[in-house]
Amino acid sequence: MIQKIAKQTGAAFKLKKGQVLKVIDPEGEQVSDMVVFNAADAREKISSGKTLDFEENILITKGNFLWSNRSRKMMEILEDTNGRNDFLLAPCSPETFQIMYNNPDYHPSCFENFYTNLKPFGIEPDDVPTAFNIFMNVQFSADGKLSVDPPLSKAGDYMLFKAEMDLIVALTACSAEDSNNGSFKPIHFEVLD
Amino acid sequence: MIQKIAKQTGAAFKLKKGQVLKVIDPEGEQVSDMVVFNAADAREKISSGKTLDFEENILITKGNFLWSNRSRKMMEILEDTNGRNDFLLAPCSPETFQIMYNNPDYHPSCFENFYTNLKPFGIEPDDVPTAFNIFMNVQFSADGKLSVDPPLSKAGDYMLFKAEMDLIVALTACSAEDSNNGSFKPIHFEVLD
Repeated sequence: MIQKIAKQTGAAFKLKKGQVLKVIDPEGEQVSDMVVFNAADAREKISSGKTLDFEENILITKGNFLWSNRSRKMMEILEDTNGRNDFLLAPCSPETFQIMYNNPDYHPSCFENFYTNLKPFGIEPDDVPTAFNIFMNVQFSADGKLSVDPPLSKAGDYMLFKAEMDLIVALTACSAEDSNNGSFKPIHFEVLD
Repeated sequence: MIQKIAKQTGAAFKLKKGQVLKVIDPEGEQVSDMVVFNAADAREKISSGKTLDFEENILITKGNFLWSNRSRKMMEILEDTNGRNDFLLAPCSPETFQIMYNNPDYHPSCFENFYTNLKPFGIEPDDVPTAFNIFMNVQFSADGKLSVDPPLSKAGDYMLFKAEMDLIVALTACSAEDSNNGSFKPIHFEVLD
């Protein structure tokens, strides 16, 4: 059954070892940030530093694993029809809009959508790590300069993630203008047994 | 007063707001991993994702700030005589040597040197984030492929970090063969008022 995350919101749920999570961009050009925790002990969680180290690549896609801060495999990426994701940048937060967008007003953010949806699992704001940013198109040049470009994903693009342990997963439909080519769309997901 | 970290060991200490930390590679080609915590609340700590996001660059050097998971500035980099550092890869850990070096035996690691030195401050292994890897030379290509190359630092190269809040700092003399061109050397540091 396909579940729908409305624009600028999020969801959190359990995923059992062996189950496959399908994350879909139904309209195209929409990023979904994802964080993952060990369901048996949420102090074990997804780590960008461990993943980039063990996979020896900045660009994480089909065939790569997502690793934990305890150096264990959390998910295997079985499919990635788009192929461009980001694992460098932190989820957008209230300060992202204050500091980078010069917007002092309230703005929805992936960070808020993570910690509100993860609260029932006992996970607090300080526990939210750098997310794996599905469909996010962060380009880098040889001198290291980063730019957040429009996603390359088309309507219907998806990724498949196989759980390597029992997990708590949180997903968002990202709330940052620059990451989603200026408009906010939903994200769909499905748990496959 | 210059303090000395012996090869393959580490140190942890407090740094007051406004003080400047000097980290020196006394012999050349030696990496020092650094992690930083808010001394008043160690749940606030250095974040690679927030730093790369706010600084809009993979390569962090003079003029950049190191940011926390709460989107606050922790340190300003005042000087960097070498200029090549890494903020992508997690500190080497026992699993680094088991998985990437095929070495099942005990091996010193930055991760162990962090958590043993941080224990007196109430910081546990799971609290250790991705470190800022001073003098570490991680090259990346346009397709994202990463390679750990010999450090470019020469004897006497140093960095200066100004504390933007009261901090707990941990430093290592890195224990990984590939990161240090195959030999292990000390790291020196000094706190300047």
